Amino acid sequence: MDTIKTISEHRSIRNYKSDAIDESILNQILEAASRASTTGNMQVYSIIVTRDEEKKKQLCGFHFNQKMVVQAPVILTFCADFYRFNQWCKQRDAEPGYDNFLSFMTAAIDALLAAQNAALAAESFGLGICYLGTTTYNADKLIDFFQCPEGVIPITTLVVGYPNESPELTDRLPLEAIVHHENYQSYTAEIIDELYQEKENLPLTMKLIEENQLKNLAQIFTQKRYTKKDNKYFSKSFLNVITNQGFMNNDE
Amino acid sequence: MDTIKTISEHRSIRNYKSDAIDESILNQILEAASRASTTGNMQVYSIIVTRDEEKKKQLCGFHFNQKMVVQAPVILTFCADFYRFNQWCKQRDAEPGYDNFLSFMTAAIDALLAAQNAALAAESFGLGICYLGTTTYNADKLIDFFQCPEGVIPITTLVVGYPNESPELTDRLPLEAIVHHENYQSYTAEIIDELYQEKENLPLTMKLIEENQLKNLAQIFTQKRYTKKDNKYFSKSFLNVITNQGFMNNDE
Repeated sequence: MDTIKTISEHRSIRNYKSDAIDESILNQILEAASRASTTGNMQVYSIIVTRDEEKKKQLCGFHFNQKMVVQAPVILTFCADFYRFNQWCKQRDAEPGYDNFLSFMTAAIDALLAAQNAALAAESFGLGICYLGTTTYNADKLIDFFQCPEGVIPITTLVVGYPNESPELTDRLPLEAIVHHENYQSYTAEIIDELYQEKENLPLTMKLIEENQLKNLAQIFTQKRYTKKDNKYFSKSFLNVITNQGFMNNDE
Repeated sequence: MDTIKTISEHRSIRNYKSDAIDESILNQILEAASRASTTGNMQVYSIIVTRDEEKKKQLCGFHFNQKMVVQAPVILTFCADFYRFNQWCKQRDAEPGYDNFLSFMTAAIDALLAAQNAALAAESFGLGICYLGTTTYNADKLIDFFQCPEGVIPITTLVVGYPNESPELTDRLPLEAIVHHENYQSYTAEIIDELYQEKENLPLTMKLIEENQLKNLAQIFTQKRYTKKDNKYFSKSFLNVITNQGFMNNDE
């Protein structure tokens, strides 16, 4: 499928058929991931493929019991991974200096670019995908579950399978909301109102506000979906993961 | 261009023609970025477009004077950005709880998925791209340069322009090096040797070892390209950026 068409038609799929994904298609998706840009061609990421039914059931629990994790045939967990690279260095009498926060960022960037290649490749084959943000929330549990060694941290997850729904395109802010020319242009209160007007007036937004009995869409985000309390809890947990997986030795 | 073809034929371009990019093509690239998956549809990222010649010259300095930053017509800096979202929340009597590390990760993920969409869209139009890892190294300087407010952190940069070179595909490790089934499979010393064998025997590798007068490729990474000293220096710098931009208030 044409690249721009694949990109433009993306919608997250949350309802899947149980149909298996052909081995050769899965392989092309993984190959596509491996062609993404990677810092210094170090390829400091790994992809863990989950297909086993029992494993998917357990994995589902770490992703807030979103049923698509069990429904879809393939779950791909993308990890920042300096373990393999460090092993190689040690076997070559080269002392790796990748036990620090910059290296974590480098590896996370690698993992995410690979993930987006995999997502688009899957969609070009008529498959649906959904990213799971819960990956960073429960990275500690995922590390135990997958038996990840030091240097490996799950960053994001892709649910992949044949769509059993055909949702509308999701709304986006007008392009001028996210694009800045030459310098970052701060937003006046009037501009913020303008940029969010369309989103705030969507029928879906009205429905959500009524269901949640709140004043507006912003309050749904701050009080229901992404609360300060949860964010701070998972922040500490994820920072502990970074430390425990050996990426916080920043002093010379 | 076909999605799999666009993905498979990617190579980083480091030599550009000075030809401008048509406004409508640039717009399609930015639109493509905005269609990427984003956490809860919050779109917590921004893209800063640099086209001004004088600005590009200055920007080049922050990217270790890589000449392509001046050569190529367009530089796109992708930033994690909760500033706009927080402004919106505050104007709606909703107290944002996004001043923490998890929110930084969420925003960085958004920025990177958008960047990879932009990269592939650009390549599908016959443009070349190169990611600049130097973005996290000098995020502090880029924040000053672009006048980014609190909540905004540059994560990666795309150089975009018409290629003035036609490099070979870059080697990649065999797929089994980066893919794990069900559990993370640790690597024995023999497996590491096998997985890196092809890369270590490339003519390019031989040339690099000779030029650098080192024992092997791993030592080129640890002693020349990505040294412990540099990594630790830039780790501290980037962690300061995260703190200064308001993403380290993790205590409840």
